[in-house]
Amino acid sequence: MAADSLPHVLVTGAGGFVGKALVRALSNRHSVTATDSTALDFSDMPDVVAITGNLEDPDLIAAITAKPCAALIHLATVPGGAAEADPALAARINVGASMALIDAAAAHGNCPRVIFASSIAVFGDPLPDHVDDETPLKPMLRYGAHKAMVEEWIATMTRRGVISGLSLRLPGIVARPLAPSGMKSAFLSNVFHALQAGAPITLPVSPQASCWLLSRHVLVGQLQHALRLTDDPADARLTLPALRVIMGDLVAEIARQTGTDSTLASYMPDPAIEAAFGNQPPLSTPRADGLRFHHDGSLEVLVAHALAEL
Amino acid sequence: MAADSLPHVLVTGAGGFVGKALVRALSNRHSVTATDSTALDFSDMPDVVAITGNLEDPDLIAAITAKPCAALIHLATVPGGAAEADPALAARINVGASMALIDAAAAHGNCPRVIFASSIAVFGDPLPDHVDDETPLKPMLRYGAHKAMVEEWIATMTRRGVISGLSLRLPGIVARPLAPSGMKSAFLSNVFHALQAGAPITLPVSPQASCWLLSRHVLVGQLQHALRLTDDPADARLTLPALRVIMGDLVAEIARQTGTDSTLASYMPDPAIEAAFGNQPPLSTPRADGLRFHHDGSLEVLVAHALAEL
Repeated sequence: MAADSLPHVLVTGAGGFVGKALVRALSNRHSVTATDSTALDFSDMPDVVAITGNLEDPDLIAAITAKPCAALIHLATVPGGAAEADPALAARINVGASMALIDAAAAHGNCPRVIFASSIAVFGDPLPDHVDDETPLKPMLRYGAHKAMVEEWIATMTRRGVISGLSLRLPGIVARPLAPSGMKSAFLSNVFHALQAGAPITLPVSPQASCWLLSRHVLVGQLQHALRLTDDPADARLTLPALRVIMGDLVAEIARQTGTDSTLASYMPDPAIEAAFGNQPPLSTPRADGLRFHHDGSLEVLVAHALAEL
Repeated sequence: MAADSLPHVLVTGAGGFVGKALVRALSNRHSVTATDSTALDFSDMPDVVAITGNLEDPDLIAAITAKPCAALIHLATVPGGAAEADPALAARINVGASMALIDAAAAHGNCPRVIFASSIAVFGDPLPDHVDDETPLKPMLRYGAHKAMVEEWIATMTRRGVISGLSLRLPGIVARPLAPSGMKSAFLSNVFHALQAGAPITLPVSPQASCWLLSRHVLVGQLQHALRLTDDPADARLTLPALRVIMGDLVAEIARQTGTDSTLASYMPDPAIEAAFGNQPPLSTPRADGLRFHHDGSLEVLVAHALAEL
């Protein structure tokens, strides 16, 4: 089918870990405008138009929204650690540019689908003994507050009927590449790389640390499911299902599947990291479950999915 | 006492209807930096330094926060109607500049008191049969979403311990001056001016319309009370008590106190205005009541307060 007859999707953060895989998954059934602040290479995908630029630039927003889109999947963000390091930049991108982008996408009057990558950071820390769909938002990171604020914007614009919005709160996504990501939770991905390489790694949490995780493979499927969903919750937001993993168990399973020694991982807990990422209690997501969202299902499958894409 | 030994307060929107009266009330016991985008005249108050500028300008924010403040009272806003007319400007001022200002005020490390003028617009419309402290936020106006977003920012920064923040949701404040205010609710003030002048006025709501109101006189007292409060709610936000007034009763009481004829007011309801401002149900504010916030107490007192400052 010719690209101009396919439903058009705009993806921000398309050069990122999730964005790259998402664009690839979409490119068979959609025409895609893919944008990121870094150079993009989707030259093997004829239905993808790549536009590099900064979301702070109104001209970039005008360029990527020039063509009406059936859907916008907004992944671009200044993540937690980077946002703490440059609060002004993070506020401009995570809040200001997000609002401007959503307004621009809505301006064609076609009520586009808007899927926003929010984060479990909206819950803050310390977390209560159990997190579910009624847990109040108490972000502690700037990043978490930014996500909660944009959730509010998307809910409002959805009530106004100018977009069909849905914010999805993502847990830790594994296994991200070994590169500076600005993420305080990078250790959750780095442990896959280290053990597969047979290299030692010191983890900033305890073996008992509990973390909510999802593989990129399953996340990309959940984002596509969200695109098609027609029975959104009234407040336009969902916490995605995630597998709750104990750090020591994760290390053991990665070691088992990679044939390495789990003692390559040692533990030197950093209280702030343990509090923010290693103390995640049982999580219930009945609303998302009822809408047929799902996580990897088991630690074995999660690790297999992550290692397959390493 | 010399100005430099008084607790220092920064007031934004100081040239506005509420701001002017607030600065006057504060000036005896505080040194005040008063800022607004319009020209300011506080020349009769030696403790007040007036700085005119645009909150979008980082240099203005640097100038007004150069001196550590014991408290920031953030009134400046692009109101409802004006925000719908210029969404991009409104987002930059109401959200972006508010976040930057709060960060700048916090940067001295003295954990300043931050009082934020939020709005009942965070509840949206239509409202439920009763509004209380548990009513979820469902803004419909851009302005209402902006306020809800900054409430979230203030709650987060308060949890982080860098400010001692409190968002106060203001009802309709009467009686504002007869000037373009960008407010869709301007009729609530204009009716005072018209009847006092013996002039006819057509109201865009029905005589049965119900509105939450507070006089400026009492509001200024509530803002000063908030400055001194030490037992804030955990989520750093309160809906202020407001008198629920029926439009026909308000007209009759203004006519009585001004000795004019209530038939000068006629009613031509605009469904959108009636829905947004004329359908406000019984309001309970137990959290604010428990913290000794209060409204005018009676329609007679509300009208007297408003007329006294007309």
